[in-house]
Amino acid sequence: MAEIFKDIPKIVYEGSDRSNELSFKFYDENRMLMGKSMKEHLPFAMAWWHNLSATGADMFGVGTADKRFGCEQAATMEHAYSKVDAGFEFMSKLGIEFYCFHDADLVPEGRDISETNDRLDEISDYIKSKAEQTGIRCLWGTANLFTNPRFMNGAGSSNSADVYCFAAAQIKKALDLTIKLGGNGYVFWGGREGYETLLNTDMKFEIENIAELMQMSVEYARKQGFEGKFFIEPKPKEPMKHQYDFDAATAIGFLRQFNLDKDFMLNIEANHATLAGHTFQHDLRFAAMNGLLGSVDANQGDLLLGWDTDEFPFNVYETTMCMYELLQIGGLRPYGGLNFDAKNRRPSYTYEDMFHAFILGMDSFALGLINAVKLIEDGRIEKFIKDRYSSFYEGIGSKIRTKTTTLEQLSDHAISLGNPTLPDSGKQEYLESIVNSIMFGG
Amino acid sequence: MAEIFKDIPKIVYEGSDRSNELSFKFYDENRMLMGKSMKEHLPFAMAWWHNLSATGADMFGVGTADKRFGCEQAATMEHAYSKVDAGFEFMSKLGIEFYCFHDADLVPEGRDISETNDRLDEISDYIKSKAEQTGIRCLWGTANLFTNPRFMNGAGSSNSADVYCFAAAQIKKALDLTIKLGGNGYVFWGGREGYETLLNTDMKFEIENIAELMQMSVEYARKQGFEGKFFIEPKPKEPMKHQYDFDAATAIGFLRQFNLDKDFMLNIEANHATLAGHTFQHDLRFAAMNGLLGSVDANQGDLLLGWDTDEFPFNVYETTMCMYELLQIGGLRPYGGLNFDAKNRRPSYTYEDMFHAFILGMDSFALGLINAVKLIEDGRIEKFIKDRYSSFYEGIGSKIRTKTTTLEQLSDHAISLGNPTLPDSGKQEYLESIVNSIMFGG
Amino acid sequence: MAEIFKDIPKIVYEGSDRSNELSFKFYDENRMLMGKSMKEHLPFAMAWWHNLSATGADMFGVGTADKRFGCEQAATMEHAYSKVDAGFEFMSKLGIEFYCFHDADLVPEGRDISETNDRLDEISDYIKSKAEQTGIRCLWGTANLFTNPRFMNGAGSSNSADVYCFAAAQIKKALDLTIKLGGNGYVFWGGREGYETLLNTDMKFEIENIAELMQMSVEYARKQGFEGKFFIEPKPKEPMKHQYDFDAATAIGFLRQFNLDKDFMLNIEANHATLAGHTFQHDLRFAAMNGLLGSVDANQGDLLLGWDTDEFPFNVYETTMCMYELLQIGGLRPYGGLNFDAKNRRPSYTYEDMFHAFILGMDSFALGLINAVKLIEDGRIEKFIKDRYSSFYEGIGSKIRTKTTTLEQLSDHAISLGNPTLPDSGKQEYLESIVNSIMFGG
Amino acid sequence: MAEIFKDIPKIVYEGSDRSNELSFKFYDENRMLMGKSMKEHLPFAMAWWHNLSATGADMFGVGTADKRFGCEQAATMEHAYSKVDAGFEFMSKLGIEFYCFHDADLVPEGRDISETNDRLDEISDYIKSKAEQTGIRCLWGTANLFTNPRFMNGAGSSNSADVYCFAAAQIKKALDLTIKLGGNGYVFWGGREGYETLLNTDMKFEIENIAELMQMSVEYARKQGFEGKFFIEPKPKEPMKHQYDFDAATAIGFLRQFNLDKDFMLNIEANHATLAGHTFQHDLRFAAMNGLLGSVDANQGDLLLGWDTDEFPFNVYETTMCMYELLQIGGLRPYGGLNFDAKNRRPSYTYEDMFHAFILGMDSFALGLINAVKLIEDGRIEKFIKDRYSSFYEGIGSKIRTKTTTLEQLSDHAISLGNPTLPDSGKQEYLESIVNSIMFGG
Repeated sequence: MAEIFKDIPKIVYEGSDRSNELSFKFYDENRMLMGKSMKEHLPFAMAWWHNLSATGADMFGVGTADKRFGCEQAATMEHAYSKVDAGFEFMSKLGIEFYCFHDADLVPEGRDISETNDRLDEISDYIKSKAEQTGIRCLWGTANLFTNPRFMNGAGSSNSADVYCFAAAQIKKALDLTIKLGGNGYVFWGGREGYETLLNTDMKFEIENIAELMQMSVEYARKQGFEGKFFIEPKPKEPMKHQYDFDAATAIGFLRQFNLDKDFMLNIEANHATLAGHTFQHDLRFAAMNGLLGSVDANQGDLLLGWDTDEFPFNVYETTMCMYELLQIGGLRPYGGLNFDAKNRRPSYTYEDMFHAFILGMDSFALGLINAVKLIEDGRIEKFIKDRYSSFYEGIGSKIRTKTTTLEQLSDHAISLGNPTLPDSGKQEYLESIVNSIMFGG
Repeated sequence: MAEIFKDIPKIVYEGSDRSNELSFKFYDENRMLMGKSMKEHLPFAMAWWHNLSATGADMFGVGTADKRFGCEQAATMEHAYSKVDAGFEFMSKLGIEFYCFHDADLVPEGRDISETNDRLDEISDYIKSKAEQTGIRCLWGTANLFTNPRFMNGAGSSNSADVYCFAAAQIKKALDLTIKLGGNGYVFWGGREGYETLLNTDMKFEIENIAELMQMSVEYARKQGFEGKFFIEPKPKEPMKHQYDFDAATAIGFLRQFNLDKDFMLNIEANHATLAGHTFQHDLRFAAMNGLLGSVDANQGDLLLGWDTDEFPFNVYETTMCMYELLQIGGLRPYGGLNFDAKNRRPSYTYEDMFHAFILGMDSFALGLINAVKLIEDGRIEKFIKDRYSSFYEGIGSKIRTKTTTLEQLSDHAISLGNPTLPDSGKQEYLESIVNSIMFGG
Repeated sequence: MAEIFKDIPKIVYEGSDRSNELSFKFYDENRMLMGKSMKEHLPFAMAWWHNLSATGADMFGVGTADKRFGCEQAATMEHAYSKVDAGFEFMSKLGIEFYCFHDADLVPEGRDISETNDRLDEISDYIKSKAEQTGIRCLWGTANLFTNPRFMNGAGSSNSADVYCFAAAQIKKALDLTIKLGGNGYVFWGGREGYETLLNTDMKFEIENIAELMQMSVEYARKQGFEGKFFIEPKPKEPMKHQYDFDAATAIGFLRQFNLDKDFMLNIEANHATLAGHTFQHDLRFAAMNGLLGSVDANQGDLLLGWDTDEFPFNVYETTMCMYELLQIGGLRPYGGLNFDAKNRRPSYTYEDMFHAFILGMDSFALGLINAVKLIEDGRIEKFIKDRYSSFYEGIGSKIRTKTTTLEQLSDHAISLGNPTLPDSGKQEYLESIVNSIMFGG
Repeated sequence: MAEIFKDIPKIVYEGSDRSNELSFKFYDENRMLMGKSMKEHLPFAMAWWHNLSATGADMFGVGTADKRFGCEQAATMEHAYSKVDAGFEFMSKLGIEFYCFHDADLVPEGRDISETNDRLDEISDYIKSKAEQTGIRCLWGTANLFTNPRFMNGAGSSNSADVYCFAAAQIKKALDLTIKLGGNGYVFWGGREGYETLLNTDMKFEIENIAELMQMSVEYARKQGFEGKFFIEPKPKEPMKHQYDFDAATAIGFLRQFNLDKDFMLNIEANHATLAGHTFQHDLRFAAMNGLLGSVDANQGDLLLGWDTDEFPFNVYETTMCMYELLQIGGLRPYGGLNFDAKNRRPSYTYEDMFHAFILGMDSFALGLINAVKLIEDGRIEKFIKDRYSSFYEGIGSKIRTKTTTLEQLSDHAISLGNPTLPDSGKQEYLESIVNSIMFGG
């Protein structure tokens, strides 16, 4: 098997000086922070679809990048193999230990699902052997239930029971593959689980069907011995006008309503959170405070654009706040990781650009980690927050927290006060100054 | 007591010809539709704040409208009385049977809560007597927990236990007033229950505190014999950067998490739904399909603007789809109604404009009702939706619905199919044609 | 040549009753309004790309519709012919008199531009013969300078002079074709004329190059005897992060800066205006009041979505206000028309859906026309506006309008007034009531 | 005159260590960069309105901050004096050398304009004396033509000629004051120059009137010897639904159309640019490349919120790209500067918060300057851009640039090429890596 990325060396940490473009400026995998190496803090994953399959096509143009990786003809089994070769070489050169996949990323779809499944068996044998050679592992698997026309109205939310069954068959196989490849997570992104118009949609019916499909999936997977976590990946819209897993809060409400919250957690994607009108940090926090933050799709969007741009993370404020949240919950392992659900900009179409993109993303997260550690070690922000609520740790406040008071008692307390003094200043600008002084200070 | 709106006659239905501007063109209160009068279908309410108190001030300018209604000095008890007089005259002239209020709308705040409460007792006696004379009723009450600087960080979510108690005291009084005035609903709009920055916020702590305040409020109200419903009114942002009751799905998740869903329903506001990225109809449907659609704030926003414009409803598509949803659940009574949480545009500053605004709003909803009834009586859309899911009423589909199958069985079914046929066309354009032909047809 | 849309009859006006779905409910081509037939008022055009070429592919899925129209293999010359057959049958059945095209819509791209041009010569002969048989004409032509990877950085704005030349070659040929087919308009939509990031872009350089390309194009076309108009079609973003022809105001500024405003007008697209933060009516008005409203792309977007949804027009408020603007300028002929730059929703994938979509669009515009005529004949809105500025028709006001006064004189006048009285109410709610009473009244 | 900010020392540079919160971490006024001191690079200005007048009121609540600065009663001449005292003490303690003002910020409005003007004469004497003592100067002045109800429909765009005259009178006086105080700039922010609805608006008429008012203002000012620049400050919306000076491109088009571009430049505000759908850098660049970048309102918005949040700049990416643009044009002097059109968050209501906010803003811009200098000195980005267009510096490319070719010649060139090679990669991710390595590197 020939080297594919011939001009690209192994990417190593060289610091932020300018001499070598193809090196990490900030990601130093063995650097220890808070008792763990950077590599342990940052379980990066490569997305089979964007990195090995996507060519830069958009709604107004065909692809610019050649992702055949040396094979003659795209969308063949030969191509499936060359993608595996390319993927493992790519991950090895970058020191990435995990990958994520949809079934449809691995092989071209067959004439029927049986043929597709045979192909999946074949290629997963090959992936497995490469994994054993390299130590690179599956982070999570999933089924692509949105590209094929049959899913035009959704999969679990389809109005066709046959399509629903087809979705079930794909999920079953994708679960089998995930288990075979040692994945400890399985993702549901409901790309077409939603509606285009309420004029033709029974939303309640559809959501119930989705829940039932998930329940059957859990049952099946547990029977096969899967001990990992299922993840819902919220996204509010695109491709559908409205998608049911709108955001973290909606997805959590759904999981609880249908008793799925023991088996499921959330996979939060930065760009999906912002499309829903939230900051990335908000949706991370919301999931985390409900004990349901499971994995992260590590990209960024453009807040002036209204679609999923899936950019490689560049904004270190975002990665800092992400890592700040992740450090608070002790990281994403053993179930999840930081998957780069991100693609090169369309004019960045070379092999080298693929590496630059990952260098950008990994360095941005390394910076985010470094800064988040500094924020935590500095302690000022955490202390400020803790102090801010101190009135609830004593007197009437503590009674509120321990649920040992009543509206009448609180009212009496308020009346006895006359006018309460104003709360202390929120000091947002001061806190922001701290963040900048830590991020940009010596 | 002198007539305040001297040049304004009683507004009556005269049809859509142009001769009399101060008449209803479409709202004919006694017209019967599907067995109920328009008036019964459309339990309109006037909002004390916008209609009797707001002067058109915005972030860049002071008020343009004089809402003293004949008294000398605003923000006095004299003014409080003149607002009552104006309000009841206004509602009588328009044939509106309900009003909604915040405590702070009724009287100027006193030096302390005791004085404020005394004033509220006094003015509510007067309101009660006017209500008895006119038959006009309280739809719902609420407490203003956002205007006073003490609530800068929220009420239930405040970091100050004293402020929290102050909020409790206001809620207690507002509940007492609501009960006294015969209101069958009580609203929580969490105007400052949210955050400006996560740098100073413990979101989990704050949400728990809010839930506890609601639980105490329910307990208190039930003890006082209140048999009505509590409503949460979702809004995603403004004034806060992020508000906890983001949308219907978030609020329902919250209610269920804290076991509040037996006592609470939702008050859906058109403009709040759109600020959250949803259509008005979406949030109505989402609440309704969860059995939690309680009341409606009947305004509209401007989707090209990013703030709550609180416009009087003009768009008959919106009112049609709203009434379509309401007819499906049998209307909002006995708890809720259609509250015009809407304000005149700032340059519409005359008394006459106040009436034009309500004529616009009431006619728009009358048109919406007429159209929704036609859509239902026509039946094509409903039938289309029912037929669309027919594959789930037999065979493998019905097993999915009755939860009597497994992922393996579904997979086997899919494999046996080879390739499933595509689902039937969603026919969105055809369905939209039906809507227009019904709305604009003979 | 066999009939392609076999089950579809000629679509005729039958009124808004429900008996025949495949009929116009409101578009009655011979109905006279303000001295012109509906057909004259509404110069509808079919877009070769959406209607004959697009299959419903989106960023998350392949096409759902089969647009081979009976030929074996897509993207062949055989397919090019079947599209012509389908297009003319389609237009004939709907009574549409115009079509629009990009070069790339007509034939598959050849190995080089010479081969492509030969194919274009061949197919345009066939189109011309069909046109002569049917009387159906070319509204405007254009060149697709965005799909091919070579245009990844733009065409006129490309950083590659060779690509710029390639663009010039395509424009030249598309102009030749437009002239050959009798088109009276030629459109520049700068789909990739913009940037992804300023980190690699010299915006000034690129805009100058675009202007130069347009100037050369005008010069060439005039030399060939083209007497029609060139159109710029503004769009703010998508596919590029920022596009140079952001909106009507930006495009007009550009045209004037480079002395292109004698040869160019604007082609305003509803959905592009809303993506730029404007109402459709705003951009129409802005172009019209500058004498530069030339043609219209008649679709609608979804204001809750951030991308170009290119929906068939459904919202009659929008079509009413569009037709209101067009009636004010005497219509779009002889240069422009109403081109349905709109596509079926992805799940509407049948031939029948194509017709439903056009029925929806044409009926929506017919309703818009009917309503706009009623608004004009009613006269209240026009009179209101005229009266509103009456203070500028006399005294100091008229001096302002005739530029015969100075700041000092105005200041003196103001000082002499003491406090000016408030302007009269803007009466927005009243005016909106008029619109609804006219749109929905008897 | 007593010290007002008693607990606040003179703020000096101490570096980014944490010991002293009330110090600059990055702004070191005498540090030399590219031959100029930081102070020269960063002509900061304080906004009289936000800093000395605004109390934190928003649409849902009254102010939280007490800005009486020791006087008894707000909105008195005593208060006007205390604001001057506070302002000069504030600027002196921060080392700020410029201020900006609206007429209405300086004194409470009198019963008529004559009384107001007398008050303005009086307070400007006082300001002038303070200025002479401290060396602090007026950056620019302006008239508040949006707060008073009389301007509900605009000033230059008002439908009332009397209101138009009133606006003229205020502008005349504000120009007089600006000249008296040595200001070298005068700003037009058209806060209500726009419309709420086209149903009552003649947009063309209104825009012509605005232009005429500006022309008269220029004429007057030049007669008084004003040699500075006028600035238009674009903003797309808020308070009005649509504002005429939508963005830089629109404003420049307007200036050129009415021959105002010799006297006017643009004052670009970060948050206004983003509300228009542009990056801050985009609007800076667009103004700069047209030779019309005059001054900057240095704040930032929240891209997830749809209104002008006017936050103190925190995001160093934004300040870096701003300073990068400013360094390219040699800075904003002698006409403009960096005005903090920014306000404390409502819960940041103390005197100390005012200083923290400015420390944040000044440090963020100092960091931006430091980074921008590094970017320029590094040179990689500039070189990349230059090289990227190299094909236009020779051969056919240079003929395009020198306008010595034709469409036919370009077409011939393209045909001779066969297929052009793809342009080189845009390398966005690589360029973003450079930015991060420079911003966060050693």
